[in-house]
Amino acid sequence: MSDTVVIGLDIGGTSTRATALTLTGERLGTGRAGGGNPTSHGAEQAATELLTALRGALAGTDPARVAAGTIGLAGAARLHADPAGRAAFDRAWHDAGLRCPYAVHGDALVAYASGTADPNGTVLIAGTGAITAQVRDLRLDRVADGHGWLLGDAGSGFWLGREAVRRLLADLDTGRTPGELTTAVLIELMGSADIAARPRDTVDATIQAVTRRPPVELARLAPLVVTAATAGEPVANALIAEAAAHLAASVGRIRPAGATTPVVLGGGLLTWDTPLGTAVRAEVARRWPDAPLRTAGDGAAAAAWLAARDLAEVTDPAALHARLFPIP
Amino acid sequence: MSDTVVIGLDIGGTSTRATALTLTGERLGTGRAGGGNPTSHGAEQAATELLTALRGALAGTDPARVAAGTIGLAGAARLHADPAGRAAFDRAWHDAGLRCPYAVHGDALVAYASGTADPNGTVLIAGTGAITAQVRDLRLDRVADGHGWLLGDAGSGFWLGREAVRRLLADLDTGRTPGELTTAVLIELMGSADIAARPRDTVDATIQAVTRRPPVELARLAPLVVTAATAGEPVANALIAEAAAHLAASVGRIRPAGATTPVVLGGGLLTWDTPLGTAVRAEVARRWPDAPLRTAGDGAAAAAWLAARDLAEVTDPAALHARLFPIP
Repeated sequence: MSDTVVIGLDIGGTSTRATALTLTGERLGTGRAGGGNPTSHGAEQAATELLTALRGALAGTDPARVAAGTIGLAGAARLHADPAGRAAFDRAWHDAGLRCPYAVHGDALVAYASGTADPNGTVLIAGTGAITAQVRDLRLDRVADGHGWLLGDAGSGFWLGREAVRRLLADLDTGRTPGELTTAVLIELMGSADIAARPRDTVDATIQAVTRRPPVELARLAPLVVTAATAGEPVANALIAEAAAHLAASVGRIRPAGATTPVVLGGGLLTWDTPLGTAVRAEVARRWPDAPLRTAGDGAAAAAWLAARDLAEVTDPAALHARLFPIP
Repeated sequence: MSDTVVIGLDIGGTSTRATALTLTGERLGTGRAGGGNPTSHGAEQAATELLTALRGALAGTDPARVAAGTIGLAGAARLHADPAGRAAFDRAWHDAGLRCPYAVHGDALVAYASGTADPNGTVLIAGTGAITAQVRDLRLDRVADGHGWLLGDAGSGFWLGREAVRRLLADLDTGRTPGELTTAVLIELMGSADIAARPRDTVDATIQAVTRRPPVELARLAPLVVTAATAGEPVANALIAEAAAHLAASVGRIRPAGATTPVVLGGGLLTWDTPLGTAVRAEVARRWPDAPLRTAGDGAAAAAWLAARDLAEVTDPAALHARLFPIP
């Protein structure tokens, strides 16, 4: 049996994960470090975090055995315009003792590959933002949404948080007693459920509490919606249904009617057993009844699999995928 | 006949207007200057612009004749927390030779008073933002929306501009040929209607063109929607209908069903004969069939009228209002 090793990295906003695999799917090691995106963290920090994660994954493994590597990175396309970022990656790769080439792919492709070995399909990711992509020959093809919080990301964590605040402000405007969800939002933002004698003062204070922080931080209110919907709260249920409709509409913009390729769901709002995940699965199953529905898994292992499948000695990449990501 | 004079000021984001009136409604003079909001322009500039406008209105009039004054100001409530702004107003007032007291009211109240003399009613304003207020005894009472672009202003110029960009991005995502409105938006943002070989590149460039500027500047795209809707463009028509529904819903949050008090429409999107104004008038007339529908007029004259009506010698403020704002 070959002693060839492949390595995969999944670089997210707050963490970097690396996995080293044999070609039979044995995990030799994993490494973990802080956020290593050169665009958001700078080239120096990116290089440091990448090296830390690589060394973790390669502990006890001779780096000369590594034949291929893949890095999954949000905004990978921007790396072409960032020579310092590319140089930082090259340096970390070299300092880890690696001499093989590596590929850089978008995080959406890596999420897709963590859900299926099929080279053609659709990936829908909803976390802080929301994006859908068609995958063709394991390359990102057409994309829908991912337009950012100001213009898009409909159905994302940002969207859920903003809509929850809107419902609170509507309660205060109309003089309705806030419900369970909007009360939870008021407490989260203001530290108490108290409403001023002039409710407009509470409206103004709520808006100020939101606008003091970067808009994207509205996403931190999304778990309140998820929790309330899990308990059956009606306003939260309505928001979850609306978010699911937005996400399914995004998929419908680029996925042909009647398509039977897999649909992979990823991102913090869809990979767990949440009301939004359930609602999106139902909506996708209704519109594409013959599509296998998959959930994204370990991104670093998926990146390593993407590296492995290009090696000549990997004759059955689907079998390797099945060993790495057994379908429950 | 009394030789008493009243003076009114309307301080907007980009201009300050002043009007001096006799108590029979004769306009003695008008003055105009740049934006004079102390919160946005600073106390020094506010004082300078205010003085310029006051001197224009009082040219040829002895300031000792002025018995009362009113200033209409967006965000008037914030002036209480701005001693420097108040001091700037006091100084300009004094430097203009005025010895009478003055009142400061929110621009929504002044817009309301420019449409009706009725002390009770509703005002709906849609310009860059959108706000509705109930007026009771010529004081602002309950308010709906006015929550700002991040959390509200549904149906406003910002909202129309953002939705128009969203429709453009949806066209590009789906691979549809942009229509008349979305093509106009593309040209306005990118300088040309060309779409890149990879449409996602045009999506990214469009998003960058928007996010390079302050978000509120999306409102400058609203006239494209208004123009397209005037020509019957279907996407623009749909956006106008949706905006009208949002604005009417705002009114419905605070105006009782069956109310027969006047509804005054103000702001650049509603005071002209635009498709949005027509749609909102139809929606308000449908929900409150017995309400007189009025359009906001000259804010400086309305501010002067608010000052006059508190004077003992003004025994019929409604008659003075009718002379100042004849209903066409």
